[in-house]
Amino acid sequence: MPAPHAPIELREFAEPALEPGGMLLQTLFSEVCGTDVHLWHGRLSGVPYPIIPGHVSVGTLVKARGPITLVDGHQAREGDRLVFYDVHRTCGRCYACAVSRTPTKCVHRKVYGITDAAADGLFGGWSEAIYLEPGVVAAVLPESVRAEDYIGGGCGLITAVHAIDRAAIRLADRVLVQGTGAVGLSVVALARLSGASTVIAIGAPADRLDLARQMGADLTLDLTKTTLSERRELVLGLTGGRGPDVAIEASGSPRAVEEGVTLIRDGGRYVIAGHYTDAGPSTVNAHEHVNRKHLEIRGCWGSEAGHFLRALSILERHASRVPWRAIGTRVYPLDRLNQALADAEAMRMPKALVDPRRRA
Amino acid sequence: MPAPHAPIELREFAEPALEPGGMLLQTLFSEVCGTDVHLWHGRLSGVPYPIIPGHVSVGTLVKARGPITLVDGHQAREGDRLVFYDVHRTCGRCYACAVSRTPTKCVHRKVYGITDAAADGLFGGWSEAIYLEPGVVAAVLPESVRAEDYIGGGCGLITAVHAIDRAAIRLADRVLVQGTGAVGLSVVALARLSGASTVIAIGAPADRLDLARQMGADLTLDLTKTTLSERRELVLGLTGGRGPDVAIEASGSPRAVEEGVTLIRDGGRYVIAGHYTDAGPSTVNAHEHVNRKHLEIRGCWGSEAGHFLRALSILERHASRVPWRAIGTRVYPLDRLNQALADAEAMRMPKALVDPRRRA
Amino acid sequence: MPAPHAPIELREFAEPALEPGGMLLQTLFSEVCGTDVHLWHGRLSGVPYPIIPGHVSVGTLVKARGPITLVDGHQAREGDRLVFYDVHRTCGRCYACAVSRTPTKCVHRKVYGITDAAADGLFGGWSEAIYLEPGVVAAVLPESVRAEDYIGGGCGLITAVHAIDRAAIRLADRVLVQGTGAVGLSVVALARLSGASTVIAIGAPADRLDLARQMGADLTLDLTKTTLSERRELVLGLTGGRGPDVAIEASGSPRAVEEGVTLIRDGGRYVIAGHYTDAGPSTVNAHEHVNRKHLEIRGCWGSEAGHFLRALSILERHASRVPWRAIGTRVYPLDRLNQALADAEAMRMPKALVDPRRRA
Amino acid sequence: MPAPHAPIELREFAEPALEPGGMLLQTLFSEVCGTDVHLWHGRLSGVPYPIIPGHVSVGTLVKARGPITLVDGHQAREGDRLVFYDVHRTCGRCYACAVSRTPTKCVHRKVYGITDAAADGLFGGWSEAIYLEPGVVAAVLPESVRAEDYIGGGCGLITAVHAIDRAAIRLADRVLVQGTGAVGLSVVALARLSGASTVIAIGAPADRLDLARQMGADLTLDLTKTTLSERRELVLGLTGGRGPDVAIEASGSPRAVEEGVTLIRDGGRYVIAGHYTDAGPSTVNAHEHVNRKHLEIRGCWGSEAGHFLRALSILERHASRVPWRAIGTRVYPLDRLNQALADAEAMRMPKALVDPRRRA
Repeated sequence: MPAPHAPIELREFAEPALEPGGMLLQTLFSEVCGTDVHLWHGRLSGVPYPIIPGHVSVGTLVKARGPITLVDGHQAREGDRLVFYDVHRTCGRCYACAVSRTPTKCVHRKVYGITDAAADGLFGGWSEAIYLEPGVVAAVLPESVRAEDYIGGGCGLITAVHAIDRAAIRLADRVLVQGTGAVGLSVVALARLSGASTVIAIGAPADRLDLARQMGADLTLDLTKTTLSERRELVLGLTGGRGPDVAIEASGSPRAVEEGVTLIRDGGRYVIAGHYTDAGPSTVNAHEHVNRKHLEIRGCWGSEAGHFLRALSILERHASRVPWRAIGTRVYPLDRLNQALADAEAMRMPKALVDPRRRA
Repeated sequence: MPAPHAPIELREFAEPALEPGGMLLQTLFSEVCGTDVHLWHGRLSGVPYPIIPGHVSVGTLVKARGPITLVDGHQAREGDRLVFYDVHRTCGRCYACAVSRTPTKCVHRKVYGITDAAADGLFGGWSEAIYLEPGVVAAVLPESVRAEDYIGGGCGLITAVHAIDRAAIRLADRVLVQGTGAVGLSVVALARLSGASTVIAIGAPADRLDLARQMGADLTLDLTKTTLSERRELVLGLTGGRGPDVAIEASGSPRAVEEGVTLIRDGGRYVIAGHYTDAGPSTVNAHEHVNRKHLEIRGCWGSEAGHFLRALSILERHASRVPWRAIGTRVYPLDRLNQALADAEAMRMPKALVDPRRRA
Repeated sequence: MPAPHAPIELREFAEPALEPGGMLLQTLFSEVCGTDVHLWHGRLSGVPYPIIPGHVSVGTLVKARGPITLVDGHQAREGDRLVFYDVHRTCGRCYACAVSRTPTKCVHRKVYGITDAAADGLFGGWSEAIYLEPGVVAAVLPESVRAEDYIGGGCGLITAVHAIDRAAIRLADRVLVQGTGAVGLSVVALARLSGASTVIAIGAPADRLDLARQMGADLTLDLTKTTLSERRELVLGLTGGRGPDVAIEASGSPRAVEEGVTLIRDGGRYVIAGHYTDAGPSTVNAHEHVNRKHLEIRGCWGSEAGHFLRALSILERHASRVPWRAIGTRVYPLDRLNQALADAEAMRMPKALVDPRRRA
Repeated sequence: MPAPHAPIELREFAEPALEPGGMLLQTLFSEVCGTDVHLWHGRLSGVPYPIIPGHVSVGTLVKARGPITLVDGHQAREGDRLVFYDVHRTCGRCYACAVSRTPTKCVHRKVYGITDAAADGLFGGWSEAIYLEPGVVAAVLPESVRAEDYIGGGCGLITAVHAIDRAAIRLADRVLVQGTGAVGLSVVALARLSGASTVIAIGAPADRLDLARQMGADLTLDLTKTTLSERRELVLGLTGGRGPDVAIEASGSPRAVEEGVTLIRDGGRYVIAGHYTDAGPSTVNAHEHVNRKHLEIRGCWGSEAGHFLRALSILERHASRVPWRAIGTRVYPLDRLNQALADAEAMRMPKALVDPRRRA
């Protein structure tokens, strides 16, 4: 991606020299997510174009320098299917890391596919090879998990693990999920796996709502075919007239925030996870919807290495029954990435995959 | 208070017959708080006028039926200075009490001075005598605490204990308090006592800001004499450029909510305690101020018996040094209560006291 | 149960007069649990013998005085299958209720089948009829739940909901359960439903371990056929060499506590729920197993009304797949209760049921 | 310290070459704490003797390579009085750092004065100069804090901040502190600053109990002059007959753990912070003292960078009134360190200071 608004170009890079502890992967899959569309439109600040996009990826280890123990305890071996946490260089020492314990705001963090310049190395998944510098948190993909399961979940799954963590769902809670994109679909599955007694998803379009039901939603409400008051009636009807115990926003819409706070029950919890970029203000009545309700609202931005590792455990246990791979069914070769971006923007599928081994 | 908008009238009631476990107090002090002004204007629903206002009060025990063990372990004795928690008949069994653990929303709760009809008994403090029915949570006022200290803190102190509880201040946190009414002033004192390293109060008018400094504020900012951006600069200047770790809203203003979320640091906490009644909507950017900040917002409405008892421990330890009594310096006899309400509404003092033993 | 050590006797009682809000149930099932064996041996203090045992029960509503709204929002109707929370008269006002928020230690609480004298009314389930006094927390058994499912879970399920609540399991946690009695078996099921990635149960005898696997355990370890070090090796092998994230003790054995603290991983959590009665001391190295590990240990005694209601939601969603009814398969009529107690004590089955409608 | 049991020797080292981001301090003070005595006796494993002891120190910046922004936002300047967090090289990426969030167990961490070999550089405070490698968390000592205040608190204060963090004291809690060494004395002060209504300290000898009262204890109990049952009576007498809400163990004694669990109230919290090394097992009744009490026990080992920074804020606000400097009044030059160790072991003072600028 040479610059915002410019078409994706195919470029050749020299094979990188490996530092001690460095690893080289042959890419199996990467993904095109909403963030890539934002990158393409230049909506994120501080991006050092040209970059190689693709922050979450899976690949085969082809070369490693030195014996390397992965974070999961495995010794890295050539041929291993490896996955890695895209955020690297988190310092552990700055105010965000050490004091406020919000490592997602670490000033030294870099993110594969987003904040590393192409000139600095193969730091992105839209490429035949990916360089893992020493210290990147990498793990072997569990044997029972297909590469398509992992990349189908992708960055949406890791963000969803964070959101679920903040939501602190208790067994038998009734949960509302707002948004049925890649994050929302994974949140639906994780809420179900966390023991929610009822999961309701609000979103669109119809094919994503179908997918939400496959991921575990008991009821889906189509934003484009229901009114606020119809949704309210249906949600209250399924939650004992009180509203959900927990709601998780994964839509990025200011209107969703306004609707969410009215639906949650007294003493409930609201996790706002979808507002990754600025979509404008929401209007909330602090008396009715926060103070008098004893509502607890928790923001949730980005993810941490622990969420990545937890996502792997979840996939290992559940990928055979939860259809993460159904989220990413359209696969694009490297020379069709402009089309992939256009399709992603038009919401023609929940997620586009990138397979650098294919040719158009 | 015979009806909304009608003048307060003096009426005589027969001395009540005591049920087993019932107690009769001679009122030493009651108070006129913001809620009483709301009652006077008919802004609260479900109030069974005529009522005897005065929800927080202190009195001398003149008669008790049967041996009564108070919640603090004391045996009630005639002559004891008693205080009691205004909320009674909380059931412990409904959904709010038993499931969502929000007893402040119990459907059976009644509140002295607000939701008990005058016809049902002496359930209010604007009266020479108060009837404590069996089961009311009552305690002896600790010897070292003057009646004026207790009533100076009054219902604002008990609400502030709840707000501080929700705020979960950690030692050396920097704390912002929005609002310098009866609740805000006590929040300032409690934040200081909780080990805050810096306490900043935003409010008005000047005499309340003076009081806020006496209660422990390091810096006070006059809402009427500063702009948003001036306040922002001063608050950031005193909080390492990051903003306060915790903010507690005790102003009831929708604008305060909007200002609060912009000031708090990444990963901080915001307690909204002042929106006891509906003052209209606030506009908040969910991306910038909640999601990206990892902000935690907690609503806080009313109080619980535990907060009342904790307030007594706090007074016992600190009333000699924290000037709670300075919050309520103007004292009104029963036949000047219309004036008291008018003065309270005009904010001529932080709080009006009622002394039924005085005559004008 | 006329007295400790004395045989159970069948006695006739007059049909009780209903107070307003009172209800009369025809008993469908009650249970014989470990507590009943303790009662029989006089191991609990303050029991007002003679008593009617049977604290958790299910019955058909045959008579109610006045319109009664149940805690779940239903209007009680004759013919309803009702269940109720055995702990009643919790006051909501004492120190335990209002301050330390441990209502299980409320000084006014009474428990059906344990602390109500037979002379005071039909307050126990080993009886053809049960009297629900006003204020008892009662709910309709959800239609999809069979009486056998509910009583199979019984008091063990409700205690298990409390233990799971204290355990705060996060999605993909590895969980160790110690004990495979009625509580432990339900804990296994609830840990699985809460999203544990691995559930290991340690217990005996073999038939309970079979049941533990049916309830969701991935691995069961027979206490009578394995050594401490064999169990340690197997547990570490299934938990990445680190030990479980969370362990829940439901065995009542001091040795289990000693084993538990050695197995849990650094920074893990340990819920001690099985020591309902005194089984003697445990020896723990505070340095190695608590301090250096950053272990968090939480005691868990009894249950609260909210756990009862949550148990109903869990049954409604999961009773079709989780074999709670398999926990209680042996059913005894009223005239075989001495045998039921003997069988329970000899651990001939996880739980004995009582069906007062049957005759031997 | 050339080896365990060997006398301390004075050695000369070449001035280190500074890496970019490295800093050289002239030592103002270091300390001799209990850990140093353990080091001297070879009780810690993995120590690369010979070492330069002294993990917490304060010094003057004499040389820095490159512009360096400290964690507190200051630009480092020659002449600054700097303090730094002794634990360095915490990686932020291993299981302990990223998943279990127990960075005190990071496999890559190193500690000044303990785990860095003398051959590797000036990584200890018993030296005229200290080398701060790039990435060490360093801050300017606030102007109002004297070097003696900081080093008087020393590593005990930082550990105490961690313990207080785990204790989550609420305003007006009654707090018991076990142990009156360097950690316990700081815990007393921090409990008082956190708003405890009552602070009771158990310890010995008499001069430390005097100091505990100066630090804020309301009552001190001399271990050598009271029996268990006398202490129990006095503690219950000062805590409403219920026992303290929170207890913090800072004694390192297995007997303290046994006493602590019996004293804390129902639903209370117990932080075990003193068992830094193995002092043998404790015997606890899980029924009586954990399960039935709903006790919460939390282990607390070592500290994190955030605790160091919080300690600085606390000192800045309170060092003028809390006599931290009184903890360390005996100052030793480098050639008297063998005597310092002997005096520390004999408990002749709470803490020995090291001033490398002095000569005997």
